[in-house]
Parts: sequence; structure tokens; C-alpha cells
Amino acid sequence: MASNTTGEIFKITTFGASHGTALGAIIDGCPAGLELSKEDIQLELKKRRPGTSNITTPRDEKDQVEILSGIFDGKTDGTPITAIVRNKDQRSKNYDNLINNPRPGHGDLCWQKKFGHYDYRGGGRGSGRITIGHVIGGAVSKKILEKYNITVTAHVISIHNITTEKKYSLDQIKENITKNNVRCADIEKAKEMEERILQAKNEGNSVGGIVEIIIDNIPLGLGQPVFDKLDGDLAKALMNIGAVKGVEVGLGFESAALTGKEFNDQYFLENDKIVTKTNNCGGILGGMSNGMPVILRIAVKPTPSVSGIQKTVNLVNNKESTIEIEGRHDPCICPRITTVAESACSMVVVDHMIRAGFIHPDKI
Amino acid sequence: MASNTTGEIFKITTFGASHGTALGAIIDGCPAGLELSKEDIQLELKKRRPGTSNITTPRDEKDQVEILSGIFDGKTDGTPITAIVRNKDQRSKNYDNLINNPRPGHGDLCWQKKFGHYDYRGGGRGSGRITIGHVIGGAVSKKILEKYNITVTAHVISIHNITTEKKYSLDQIKENITKNNVRCADIEKAKEMEERILQAKNEGNSVGGIVEIIIDNIPLGLGQPVFDKLDGDLAKALMNIGAVKGVEVGLGFESAALTGKEFNDQYFLENDKIVTKTNNCGGILGGMSNGMPVILRIAVKPTPSVSGIQKTVNLVNNKESTIEIEGRHDPCICPRITTVAESACSMVVVDHMIRAGFIHPDKI
Amino acid sequence: MASNTTGEIFKITTFGASHGTALGAIIDGCPAGLELSKEDIQLELKKRRPGTSNITTPRDEKDQVEILSGIFDGKTDGTPITAIVRNKDQRSKNYDNLINNPRPGHGDLCWQKKFGHYDYRGGGRGSGRITIGHVIGGAVSKKILEKYNITVTAHVISIHNITTEKKYSLDQIKENITKNNVRCADIEKAKEMEERILQAKNEGNSVGGIVEIIIDNIPLGLGQPVFDKLDGDLAKALMNIGAVKGVEVGLGFESAALTGKEFNDQYFLENDKIVTKTNNCGGILGGMSNGMPVILRIAVKPTPSVSGIQKTVNLVNNKESTIEIEGRHDPCICPRITTVAESACSMVVVDHMIRAGFIHPDKI
Amino acid sequence: MASNTTGEIFKITTFGASHGTALGAIIDGCPAGLELSKEDIQLELKKRRPGTSNITTPRDEKDQVEILSGIFDGKTDGTPITAIVRNKDQRSKNYDNLINNPRPGHGDLCWQKKFGHYDYRGGGRGSGRITIGHVIGGAVSKKILEKYNITVTAHVISIHNITTEKKYSLDQIKENITKNNVRCADIEKAKEMEERILQAKNEGNSVGGIVEIIIDNIPLGLGQPVFDKLDGDLAKALMNIGAVKGVEVGLGFESAALTGKEFNDQYFLENDKIVTKTNNCGGILGGMSNGMPVILRIAVKPTPSVSGIQKTVNLVNNKESTIEIEGRHDPCICPRITTVAESACSMVVVDHMIRAGFIHPDKI
Repeated sequence: MASNTTGEIFKITTFGASHGTALGAIIDGCPAGLELSKEDIQLELKKRRPGTSNITTPRDEKDQVEILSGIFDGKTDGTPITAIVRNKDQRSKNYDNLINNPRPGHGDLCWQKKFGHYDYRGGGRGSGRITIGHVIGGAVSKKILEKYNITVTAHVISIHNITTEKKYSLDQIKENITKNNVRCADIEKAKEMEERILQAKNEGNSVGGIVEIIIDNIPLGLGQPVFDKLDGDLAKALMNIGAVKGVEVGLGFESAALTGKEFNDQYFLENDKIVTKTNNCGGILGGMSNGMPVILRIAVKPTPSVSGIQKTVNLVNNKESTIEIEGRHDPCICPRITTVAESACSMVVVDHMIRAGFIHPDKI
Repeated sequence: MASNTTGEIFKITTFGASHGTALGAIIDGCPAGLELSKEDIQLELKKRRPGTSNITTPRDEKDQVEILSGIFDGKTDGTPITAIVRNKDQRSKNYDNLINNPRPGHGDLCWQKKFGHYDYRGGGRGSGRITIGHVIGGAVSKKILEKYNITVTAHVISIHNITTEKKYSLDQIKENITKNNVRCADIEKAKEMEERILQAKNEGNSVGGIVEIIIDNIPLGLGQPVFDKLDGDLAKALMNIGAVKGVEVGLGFESAALTGKEFNDQYFLENDKIVTKTNNCGGILGGMSNGMPVILRIAVKPTPSVSGIQKTVNLVNNKESTIEIEGRHDPCICPRITTVAESACSMVVVDHMIRAGFIHPDKI
Repeated sequence: MASNTTGEIFKITTFGASHGTALGAIIDGCPAGLELSKEDIQLELKKRRPGTSNITTPRDEKDQVEILSGIFDGKTDGTPITAIVRNKDQRSKNYDNLINNPRPGHGDLCWQKKFGHYDYRGGGRGSGRITIGHVIGGAVSKKILEKYNITVTAHVISIHNITTEKKYSLDQIKENITKNNVRCADIEKAKEMEERILQAKNEGNSVGGIVEIIIDNIPLGLGQPVFDKLDGDLAKALMNIGAVKGVEVGLGFESAALTGKEFNDQYFLENDKIVTKTNNCGGILGGMSNGMPVILRIAVKPTPSVSGIQKTVNLVNNKESTIEIEGRHDPCICPRITTVAESACSMVVVDHMIRAGFIHPDKI
Repeated sequence: MASNTTGEIFKITTFGASHGTALGAIIDGCPAGLELSKEDIQLELKKRRPGTSNITTPRDEKDQVEILSGIFDGKTDGTPITAIVRNKDQRSKNYDNLINNPRPGHGDLCWQKKFGHYDYRGGGRGSGRITIGHVIGGAVSKKILEKYNITVTAHVISIHNITTEKKYSLDQIKENITKNNVRCADIEKAKEMEERILQAKNEGNSVGGIVEIIIDNIPLGLGQPVFDKLDGDLAKALMNIGAVKGVEVGLGFESAALTGKEFNDQYFLENDKIVTKTNNCGGILGGMSNGMPVILRIAVKPTPSVSGIQKTVNLVNNKESTIEIEGRHDPCICPRITTVAESACSMVVVDHMIRAGFIHPDKI
């Protein structure tokens, strides 16, 4: 059944597959009057696109976007914004040996049982390439958030066994992550991380990592109690990104080992604004933003496409078999997942701003 | 805006507050023909209800359920099932000193800004007491899952600094958790945990913990790719429970430090069924169940209601102030949250079984 | 599957059946701060309830409402408002001969095939009695609309072959319909209509009619283009009321025989406000309100419960059979349907006012 | 807010405007395994497209469709199907005089107030051209219904003051409507209708009409009680089509003047199938299909674009003004609306078949 739409009022529907004609997204519910150009979207796609460094897949996709609808005289017009990217550098032959032998760690087997087939050409719609749709939605969302000075920043804090320890200001993070391929604020550690990823690549292996997302300047009172909590929706949006195996808010799993007296963030006044000095709750209480920055972290598993022989089961003769995966893959998805995570969170925040009456639903 | 409904096809809407007349739930979309009695729901409510041991809040609520609609001749009839529980042991006076002084760690401030008021009587609809609605929905869901031999089991694996290390079979877990107040499979550790909770209680403090949920015998192919993934929906359902600050699937955050060759679960045949020997992915690939047990863990923060003076800001005069919280509270919410987590997951699984065509939408 | 909820942001879920324990509704998404009492709801229920005149069913139900949640200090608190009415005067034995012999003109056969059973006791949830839920939702909606001076008025314009011809001002209509049992603005015709209904009653027969609904003072720009048009949503809401077989807006079916030059409503200024002098379009253009009163009419079929032998098929032996319907029924549903139609339209208008940013989603 | 999606499980989202780059639709929730080609969609678009006879607008659009996603090896793959049509024959200059002078009978004024602007170039997304999206969705729906031998047929029964009186079998209707430009089953009347339309065209005027839709071989039990009734959803789908001012089911407004004894359709057996000999209810009882053909009729207003001077109000200086509409328009939209009405109803039926468990949600 339909499951390619996200959002309640501000809705994004995405489409397309790894080796189809085109991928894209429709943003429905964007208020009229927002300045938006092809370049705004292209800029975000560029951050996500492969082939830009030696630690990403060598698949070379320029990911040129075309806007088909929703813009009139340089502004959104309140109708659905449709943007597409055509696939160019497809090499489907790489995948032929995978027919009927589902890859471990991928959704192949699940697709087969569910839909009666799976797209052996790079995973089809199970591919990470579909996050082009997320990023298109994120680009529009970020343009909206810009008007409210809200920023969403994702940065890598851990790759395999290498973890940043230093604390950086948000401004430093924003600046530093543009200076290395890993999108890590700690430039020294970034080098180590890059080397660790290259090593994995050379070994035909892959590595996981952790990405932190900071939503800054978010208004107090976003999120709906009970079943549409801000943290619930953010957790879903992030967990829906392929390869994400965990989501935490504020101190997250660390909270479990604390007492209430240690954990509680007490209230103070700062320039007449109610603030907390600690932010253990990660900016969310009772499912609603409390005005402090929202802090999330996601656990990213190592890319499942690794070299070497792996055990599987042949779906035609129902016997155990083996496969060897070729094709082009990312040895670590963390650097590229940052843009996708920013997009996912941006879309949730915009949706909740409209839902909570901070943004008018029809015009901006 | 409306946010008290969860589910796409099998929908639960809950209502009621800590100190209102009644709490309850409507289950809409339950197929006709399911045997269901008041006792089925009462049994689950009993697991959740307070006052049953010295490590829960002393508020004494019998939580007697009444079914108002949806049952005909002992079976569901395809129309909405409404069940309510009336509040009995309310002592609102305990809360009077909290008016206009939002409690740290609670949603009071957020409610005030969002809705123009907050219910100082025990948090109103921000109270943990509203999970009565979840548990009613869970009770009906479990009755459905029973027909398919699917079980959902939540057990405590960590309280503050005490963590279970031994591995238990699912049968052992199911049995052992009924034998102690903490709902921990490791009976030795359970004693330590109980003592740790009592110590916190005596100190007017609280502690957090970790709960694991195991969904057994789940069919292959549940979950919808892209935006309605099974892990996305489970993460949302769990994060929506008050006090939950993190959710992970399978190895979760541990995945981040592994390589793909270590992480991938390879496929084998076992009695003609495709299985994996490891279950690092926690039973979910590409957002869909792969036929292995689904394993989730949630981080539960220490209850924010602790004794002693805490800093806050008075909302009337906008000056810094202090409060002291009295009332009756759980020193650790983990034991009682197990039933809520089971309910939340059960509802998601039933919804996805209907969505994926495993259960007929109208009759069972 | 779930189908007992209506509305996008302002949502009403109803429950209960003709002969169950209770009926009721949850209103989720009502902004906080609205003054609302039990009496507000009781007043509307009283308009709908049976047994108030000799032209309605003699079933005597006081329809006393109880509010279970959502009100705090006399005002809505932003959480779900739950209100219930317990069934009192049930006489299920009247229906026993109907088991396995579906009544012509009722949904019995459809329920049987769809859900594997049907509630032979007065139609269960297929009964008109379920509109108690609609009216609860309508009562809350009307309280909201009151703040914006928007009124929704339904009046009978035709019963069987008796049709009003005189035109009345909205004020006259509002006044006159309270003065007769038929809720017709033309007091002379109302007498004829009442006699016609009594005649049908005495003959064990029933009659249909036409009800007009006028939504006054509705703001310009309600409704969403394409798939959530105001007329689309109103048509659905009205057609969803049992016995309604047709819905038209403005000139409706009469439009078909006109030319564009005759039909178009041209624009003029009246006290600096853009108005039309004619209102052939019924206040809706391009799916949006144009600021003029919205005018709708619904065709109501004669109640299917009539006396005398009717042909049916026995579902057990699959042979043709006959039934004779007893029980207590309305010889004409039009007078009572007016309140239900007002409720249905009020809920749509409130939902669209929130959706279009005219009402804040969280507080009023 | 978002409003360009229709359907609960089988969802269609449409996009694009009269004078933008492209129009199209995404069908999300189409089960995998359906044979579908570009030609299947092109065939339906051809029925709708303008410029094919002298009674439609002379705008010459070939409406060539391109499928961007959702098809793998000639079959649907369970992922969103995206199809687009690029605008070619746009002549925006025709519309320049309409800036700031909203056209009577169109949504211009409503768009202006709602979104802060309106697309004076042919109505933008308020144009009838957007029904390309409906027809794409309808083409896919019809391919699905074909597998179940369900047909949806719309035919013109009235144009202005010319109305068919003869009754035709469904087979005759299907055949005859392909033989004339009006899509009327009565070939003699069709000639009169065509002449009447041409006369209106020559006079710079337009005419309305009535279209009947017959859904044949629909299974018993489609539709959900209470708020998602089959007739409710069909009424909404049809009313959402531009220019439709009324919808009726079965005898519709005629029902109002009948008695219950006249109206009720009694049950009989025919080849062991339960049938009714009359079909006054139009195949729907209690909101569910009863197994007989579903019969609907829609009232279509005369196209509002007529020649000659019309009164309006200038939105810049807020003074009364006049406009004269040029551009290319249909003198009667009924013939072309038949395909759109078939599409709208087909989408509803497929959605309800999946919702009621007649079609598997994931594979066909």
C-alpha cells in the first residue's frame, strides 16, 4: 500500500528507483510566496550526490534537477512542487548475478516476499539513491526555515572506532564540516576517519558511524502531545532512512544510568527568555520543543554491500547458495547521510510549524 | 491539532487525563469476529496499574474497565470498540503549589505556551496515566496477535547502573519477568534493581533504565518501504511514550563501531525456511521484517518528579522561582513501561499485518 | 478498516450502535480555550432526539449526555473531548424475526457479506441512532462557529409532493423552523407536510423529502483546490448521512439546463466588499468559498422501514423468503435529519477554517 | 495545505498547471505485478484531450505521456508510478488582460485571497487541464478493474435543454458513445446536442449538462460504514471535478417525492445470487455496494468562460471594472468530463476494493 508520502500538512511524496528513468519528489502543502529556484535544490543535491570524493561510491551522477511544477514568477504558488532528477550513469549489468540470490543485509528477500519480485539492479527503490527525494524535500524545507533563522545541522561524530571528543560551538561545526569529506567538526579526527574509511574501501569492507543533528532556534511548543510528538516524528523520520539502526534525543541511552536529580534541566531566565543551562532532554519535553536546541543522534550501520563471498539462499531452487557483490558502493554512508538526515528533520520541523500555527498553511 | 490517534488502518484514539472524569480508548478498524471480553482488557490494565508494589506510585487506582461499544455476542462486530476507566483516587490538592511554576523535566511549560494553560493537577494529559489508553489498544492488539502465535514481550535489562548480562531464551524471559516486580529476566539482578529503585525512592530521587522488546514469530514482509518502514513506525510508537529518550533496533548504536563483514546477517535454510544465524539487524531489513525476531531497546529517563527544591520561572511575574514537588510518583518507570511498550509495538504490528494483507481488514 | 473518523485537523470519531451500551463521539483537534458545557451539547441532542412529536419514532430516549474528558475549568483544554449517551429504551425483541432475513432498503445484507454478521437489533451501527455522534461533533463545531458569527441552518423545503415555493430571509427561516415539527420555514406548508407524514405513518408507509442547508457569513477562501474542495468535503459529509441520495450546491441540477451567460455570478462592490448579486454557484467557486452564503440541498429517501410483507432472501438456506418489519420508526426522517446535516456541515467548516489558517489549531 | 492527494490506500497525487512546464500524477499504492504500458495511459488521455472535434477547445495538445517510475519489465513493481505530460501549445498572452480582474464563475478571486495571487494564465491549477492527473490515475485504476471485469462508464444524458429519454443496455451505451463527439448513447439526440453546443460556441456562450456513470459488476460490500461510505467517497470524488454542481445516486432527487413502499428494492434470487429487480438505491445501501450496478449522475454547470463584457472588481484599486475573456475554451465540458468522471470513480472503486480486502495491497 501507499507509503511514499511523509508529513501531515506539509507533505512530501517521493518516487523513482536506483536504475529507473528518474527519481524525484512532490512537495504538497508548501505555502505560496516562497522564493525558490532550481539552484536552491541543486545546492542540496550536490551535498548528497556521489562521486565527489574518494570515500564515496564512484558512480558518477551529476543529479541535475528539473522543476516541473509549483513555481510561478520565481515563487512557490501554493500548488505541488515537482522536481525530478534523471538517472544517467547506470550500469545494470553489474547486478545480474544477484537475480534470485538475495543479498545479506539488504531488503531483497523482504521485497521478494512482499511484492513478488525484487529489483536486483542496485536495490531499486530500496537503494540509498532514493534519498534524492528526501533531499529535494529538505531543500524546500530549509528555504522555509531560513526565513525563521532555524538551522538544521548534521555532523559526523563517530566513524567505526574513531569518535570525536571535543565540544564545538554550532558555528564552528557549521564551518568545519565543509572543510573535510567526512563532515566532521573535529578536523584532526576527520583525517583519521577518512583514512579508516579508505582502509575499509581497500579491504572491500565498510564501516558504520554516528551522526548528530542539531536543530537550532526552534520555537517553543512544536510537537503534538500523545501520538504526534516532535521526538516521535523525528525518530520515525530518521529511522526511515536506510542504514539507521538507532535514534536518541538529548542524553539518549546515557539517561538510563542517571538519577532524576542529575537529569532534570532546571529553568532560568536569560534576557527575559526562559532557558535551561543544561540540555539533557535534548530540547524536547512531553513531546514538545522547549525552546532549547533539539539534539538527536543516529546510529548508522556499516553499508551491507561488501566484497567477498557471502552465504544466501537461491529463491528458485530454495537451496543454500553464495553470492559475491560487485557494483559501486559507499564504504561508509555517514558523510552522505548527513544531508539526508538534515532533510528528514527539516521536513518534520516545517510540518510541525504549520501544524502548530507558526507558519500560515497557505501563504508565507 | 488532532494528535491522539495512531495507526493507518487499525486505529487507536485515546482520551482522558490524570485528574479528569475518565480515560479510555477507541479502537477503530478491528476486524469483526474476534472474541473479546472485558477481562482481556482488564488483565493488561492490571499489569500497568499503579499501587501493586512498593516500587510504584502509591496512588491506588483499581482501573476497572467498562466497554461501551464494539462487542456483540462476545465478539468484535467491526465497529469501534470503546473502553473507559474512571479516575477514582485523585488528590488534586497535592498539586496546587505548582500553578504557574512549571516543573523541570515535565511538559508544563510547553503546554502553557502551546495551549495557553497547563493542567497542574498531575500533568493532565501529559501524565503517564494516559497510557491506560495505550494499554487498552494493546490488549485488543494482543488478542489478535494471539491468533497468529505472535508474541510481544518487554523486559527490563538495565536499571540505573545495574545491567543484566546473562542471555535467556524467550520462554525463560516470559516466565521470569512475572516473578519479580521489576520485570527483569535475571532474577538475581532483579533484586539488586529493586533495591536500587527503593533507595532512589527513599532519597526522593528517581532512576532510569533500559527495556528490551522482542516480537516473536512475526511474518516476513511487514513494513512498507520508504516512509512507513516497520522500524520507523516502531521507533515512533516507542518514542511517543513519555520518558523514552532513545530507540534502537538489533545491535543499534553498537552497529556504528562494526564493519559490514561483521554486521551482515547471512542467510541459511532451516527446515526449508530462510533464516539468519545472527540477528544483528534485529529482524528488520530495508524497513521490512525479515522473518527473524524483531528486537528493540528503549532508553527510559529517570522520572522527573523528584523531591527537593528545584529552580523554575514563575509564569505570572516572569521571575525566577523555585518549586518543591509533592504528590505520588514512580521512582522508576521502567517496570510499568514494559506493558506500555508491549502495547505500542502490538498496535504497530497489527496495523502492519492488515496493511500488508496478512489480516483481512473487515473480518478475522 | 477504520472509517469512523472524519476531518483532517479537527477530527471527530464516533462510536456506538442502536442497541449497545452507549453511543458517543471524541472530538480531537478542538483548540483550547473554548467555553463548553454539557448543556451546549444537550441542546443540540434535544433537537435530534426522537419521541418529541407524533411524527417521529415513539422510541423514547432522553439522550442524556456525559462529558468524560477534554474540559478543564469550563473550557476546552486542547485534549480530546469525549461525550457519551447511554441507550435506555431498547426493545430488542422487536427485531428477532429479522435474523438472517436482511431488510430491503437497509444495509443488512452488505454488513453480512462484509463483516460476516449484521446487527438485526435495529441495524446496529447502521441505524440512524448513530447520528448522536455527529450531533455531538456538531454541537462543539457550532460553539466555535458562534465566535465567528457563522451560522449553519438546515430547513425542510420539500416533503413527498409538497414543496415550499416562497422565499424567506435567513432570519425568518431560523425563526420559523422552531415553530413547527417539520422544521419548514413556510408555516402553512409545514402543516400540510406534517399531515402528509402522519398519513404515511398511519399507512405504515414513509415519505422522503428535500432539506436545504445555508452556511452564512463564511469567510472567503475556505476549501483546498483539487481533492479537498469545500464542496467535495461538504458533499461527502452530507452523502455519508444515512438516507441521503443526492447533494447539490447552488442551482445544482438546474445548472445543467442553463447557459454560461445566465449562470455566471458577476462581481460588484457593496460597502467595499466584493459580492455577487446572484448566487447561482452557491457560494463556492473552484472548490473554495467566495464569501457569499453557501447553499446546499440534499435529497432524503423515504425511510426503508415500512410495514407489510416484503420480499427478501434467507441467508441460511439461501431461499427467497419474506419479512414483516415491526419496531419503531420515523415515517419521515427529514425533520430530524436537519440537525444532523447542520452538524455535518459545521464540522467541515470548522475543519477547513483551521486548515486555511482562519482559526489557530491549538488555542482559540 | 496539502490537498492534491486522493485515496486512502491506493493514493493518487497530481501536480501541474495550465501553463506550467508539465502536469502529471503519482500513483502510490498500486500493487506490484500489474501489466502497464505507456499506451494504456495514452489511450485514456486521448479520450480527454482537447482539439479532437469542433465542439472542444481548439487548444491543440497532443498530451504525450512519459512514465518516470514504477514500472519494471512491463509490470508495476509496487513503487510509485509517476507519469507526466508536458505542456506544448500554451499561449499565455491571451490572458494578460485578466491580471487583477478576477473572472466571474472562476476561482480567481478565491485563489487571490487564499494564496495571495492567482494564475491569470488559464487559471493555473484551477484549470480543467489539471484533470490530466485524474485521467492518469484513472488509466491505472481501469487496468486493475479490468482484471475483475468491473467497468466504469460515463455517458452524457442531457445537454442544456436536450435530454435522452430512451433506455439503453450497458453494452449499447458503451458502443454508442464512441460513435459521436458528445458521448451520448442516443445517437439521434447526440446530433441535436452537438448542434446545441456548436450554437453556444458560435454565440460565445456555453451550456451545461448531465452525465451518468455506471459502475458494473462491482462486488457486494465495498464501502465503509459511517464516514467512508462508498457513496460519500464517490460524491466527493465527483464534486471535486471542476464544474460539477450536484451528485446523485440511484433515483437521487427523485427519491424525495416517493414513499418507502415505492422506493425499497426487494431481494430475489437469480442463479443463486441475491439481486434486486429495481435499482432505485443505485446499488448502494448503508454506504456499501449491494452487488447491483452503481448508478450516479452529476450536474455540470455551463463553462464560465463566455464572451462579452462581464462585471468584476479590480483588485488593485478595489473599484468595479469589466473584463472580456478571450482565450480558447470548451463551449460545453460534458463530453470531455466523461473520461474524468470515469477516472474519479475508478480510483475510488480500486481504493475501496483494497480497503475491503478484495485486492491484495501489495501484489496483484
